[in-house]
Amino acid sequence: MLTLRHLAIDTLRENVAFLSRRCTRYRVDDFLGMGRVEVRGQGRSVLAVLNLVEDPAILGPDEVGLSLAAAHQLGLPDGAAVEVEHPTPPASFDLVRAKAAGATLAPDELAAVIRDIAGQRYSKIEIAAFLIACAAFMTTEEVLGLTRAMIDAGRRLEWDLAPVVDKHCIGGIPGNRTSMIVVPIVAAHGLPIPKTSSRAITSPAGTADTMEVLANVDVSVERMQALVREVKGCLVWGGHVNLSPADDVLIAVERPLSVDTREQLVASILSKKAAAGSSHLVIDIPVGPTAKVRSANEAVRLRKLFEYVGDQLGLVLDVAITDGAQPVGRGIGPVLEARDVMAVLRRRPDAPADLRARALHLAGRILEFDPAVRGGAGAARAAELLDGGAALATMERIIAGQGPPPARAALGTLVHEVTAPKDGVVSAIDCYRIARVARLAGAPLDKGAGIDLLRKVGEPVRRGEPVYRIHANTGADFAFAKAYAEAGGGVLVNGEGARA
Amino acid sequence: MLTLRHLAIDTLRENVAFLSRRCTRYRVDDFLGMGRVEVRGQGRSVLAVLNLVEDPAILGPDEVGLSLAAAHQLGLPDGAAVEVEHPTPPASFDLVRAKAAGATLAPDELAAVIRDIAGQRYSKIEIAAFLIACAAFMTTEEVLGLTRAMIDAGRRLEWDLAPVVDKHCIGGIPGNRTSMIVVPIVAAHGLPIPKTSSRAITSPAGTADTMEVLANVDVSVERMQALVREVKGCLVWGGHVNLSPADDVLIAVERPLSVDTREQLVASILSKKAAAGSSHLVIDIPVGPTAKVRSANEAVRLRKLFEYVGDQLGLVLDVAITDGAQPVGRGIGPVLEARDVMAVLRRRPDAPADLRARALHLAGRILEFDPAVRGGAGAARAAELLDGGAALATMERIIAGQGPPPARAALGTLVHEVTAPKDGVVSAIDCYRIARVARLAGAPLDKGAGIDLLRKVGEPVRRGEPVYRIHANTGADFAFAKAYAEAGGGVLVNGEGARA
Repeated sequence: MLTLRHLAIDTLRENVAFLSRRCTRYRVDDFLGMGRVEVRGQGRSVLAVLNLVEDPAILGPDEVGLSLAAAHQLGLPDGAAVEVEHPTPPASFDLVRAKAAGATLAPDELAAVIRDIAGQRYSKIEIAAFLIACAAFMTTEEVLGLTRAMIDAGRRLEWDLAPVVDKHCIGGIPGNRTSMIVVPIVAAHGLPIPKTSSRAITSPAGTADTMEVLANVDVSVERMQALVREVKGCLVWGGHVNLSPADDVLIAVERPLSVDTREQLVASILSKKAAAGSSHLVIDIPVGPTAKVRSANEAVRLRKLFEYVGDQLGLVLDVAITDGAQPVGRGIGPVLEARDVMAVLRRRPDAPADLRARALHLAGRILEFDPAVRGGAGAARAAELLDGGAALATMERIIAGQGPPPARAALGTLVHEVTAPKDGVVSAIDCYRIARVARLAGAPLDKGAGIDLLRKVGEPVRRGEPVYRIHANTGADFAFAKAYAEAGGGVLVNGEGARA
Repeated sequence: MLTLRHLAIDTLRENVAFLSRRCTRYRVDDFLGMGRVEVRGQGRSVLAVLNLVEDPAILGPDEVGLSLAAAHQLGLPDGAAVEVEHPTPPASFDLVRAKAAGATLAPDELAAVIRDIAGQRYSKIEIAAFLIACAAFMTTEEVLGLTRAMIDAGRRLEWDLAPVVDKHCIGGIPGNRTSMIVVPIVAAHGLPIPKTSSRAITSPAGTADTMEVLANVDVSVERMQALVREVKGCLVWGGHVNLSPADDVLIAVERPLSVDTREQLVASILSKKAAAGSSHLVIDIPVGPTAKVRSANEAVRLRKLFEYVGDQLGLVLDVAITDGAQPVGRGIGPVLEARDVMAVLRRRPDAPADLRARALHLAGRILEFDPAVRGGAGAARAAELLDGGAALATMERIIAGQGPPPARAALGTLVHEVTAPKDGVVSAIDCYRIARVARLAGAPLDKGAGIDLLRKVGEPVRRGEPVYRIHANTGADFAFAKAYAEAGGGVLVNGEGARA
């Protein structure tokens, strides 16, 4: 037997086992062919990718190390006696190979694959194989089967309410923080909308990051349920609930590979929403030259797939195809986006009109799920709730119910203005590049970092006038963001990039 | 800047960079989306998968660690000042995504992908994506383009001789050590046959492992070239020559995924052989129920693809489809296989007849590449060279030329006999299971470990008589091999598994 060592190494969702090159018990070369081992002890086991350690200060010859997540999965204490074996790869991987060779998988076959993925029995190369095999070709029945399998692999929230409404945007548009306006409007109307959101991973802010400027978002499922009973809405981080865990595993490989197919997108979103217990759902698909979806044709194909799978799952689904030509609102980054959201809710004259209009449109479509709201009357009802102050009052109750934010966040005090290279009109804003500047400035972890857009597409500007401001709190972030902005291209004035 | 640390961790062909979770210079969470970084210094850089270290004893907050291969690739000393950046993924990966979506790649596109793979700029998930995208569908033109790209990505040996002949077996049949008989026969005839072989990775012996029982195989390219001039043949390990390096990278991911497509097999073998400078090549495809190729149909499709690509590369190619129903010879494992080979070359009466017949058949087909040998007369000429002692004399000159083996290897002294469960006839021998027993016994690293088959398919045996012997040198290996053999199935007597 070897002695188990918990190594304090986070291998980012890949189980890794470490053996000494001079292992006293096993001929480690014999494991190299597969590059993977199974670590066993006390009737428990974990599959892990193998690394070999040549430094006895890191690992001794009579020890086996496990990365943090692998050790957690095995569940045995540091110092436990364990054995290392040739791995038995998950049987479901035969189905992935069949899929790669062109087969169509039945629902129970997809369920077997997804159970093993959610159970962390696939290595990252196996997950990549599954994703690419699916990217080549999937029937709509397979997308449905995949979505169902992903729902079933995790927890499912139950609500003793009906309908339970929700909204989701497929993302990609900076500043598009409509949820924080839509939720209080819809809740003020009386429709239950228990919104769980993610933190940003590659964007400058997720709804959870921005809401955290105003309130605590790290809320238990029980507290969330109580809040929805009292106020009809909440805006919390979804990380506490084990909703569609396979989705998180798949995304961790999908993202670095940048393979985001329509099929995976639909399965990912609808599995999370169905697991969250929603019965009625509005999906926002922004279309624009630098958005995720770049043509009306593409948007329609995506919409049809959402509708097909949603209908089969018994969700009432309304897909909104919206303008994704440029960022929404003025602020990009948690503090700046929270400022825009509150300006809209407080009906301030300087509130971004585009953010308000989008939120009213989406809220209106949700309100029309209410049989008492006439078709076409949703947006007017939404405006009534916003302009009458009911939405703001509801937002204040939600904030009070969730409690104060963990830390006070203030706008970054290092400020740099990017200016117009000539007189003209802002001709384009690149969503990707602007998001990257905000991210380099420190958003979302540094909540006060980000970008304040001073001119939007179509607005006139004179040479030397600022088109956006960079906010940061640390010198290093500030320098990275300025250097990237200097390379230009985020905002074009008559086709020419604004620079420092 | 951070301080570079060479961490003595072999991450098995995946470049890994380690950052402290409490890194003083970078916000590490910002790298988590992609899970990869680029480490730069002094104008050099390396792309690496990111791991986060939480133990300051392994890595400090002002350090960045690199795994062994990544540090080697970066080429900067431990202690150098380096920076860490968001990675720029290889541009060629766009082509992989296109292939995954159904595109056909042009030769220059495949060349771009393969250059980046050979240059270790792909992570393993990216390589998995490429393999699975190719597994779905490849045109024969793509297979040709891939093979050419793989040849061009490495070194190519030049010989001032013509023809240069070679042979290659696609593998999977234990004991099939014909190269060590074919090479001396062909060289004795006067055809140059510079044979480079691999060491076993998942099988109990490669030709390099078995030859190393008799001679040194770790020979420089210059020594190898001199030997081919003098003796016309050699049997050396191919690891010194950078032949088709992309192949090694691809195989390291292909193997754990167990995706071995016809297309990858052909590109892998022909790229290695063409890079080795062969002009004439015999390919051996064994067909049998537990072989790599399991039907005549499958063998013919594989043959056609070999012929198409070989012809386009200007190789003279002859594909031999052979009987792969059971292991060849008696011994499995380096010492035992070397014994069988030398018994054939020494024309001993107890030499395995099947090994001799196979070697003569394949040598004969190679000899027919000589315009002076009449069609159909090759096998007779091979038998003449073998039976007249010329092959043995040539083998002795090759052994003397390569020098003595690095260590004397002797047959394992721990011996266990697996016996027939009843009177009858050996009805089947499972190539995979028998190889596994030999491997568990310690082969190929322990050269004296392995299996001695005492009965082959069709031979009668009585209840309790041994059907094979396990040889091992260490108690642990011996126990593992016996336990696996005990589970039965390696050798069947009238359909029933022989056991301890």
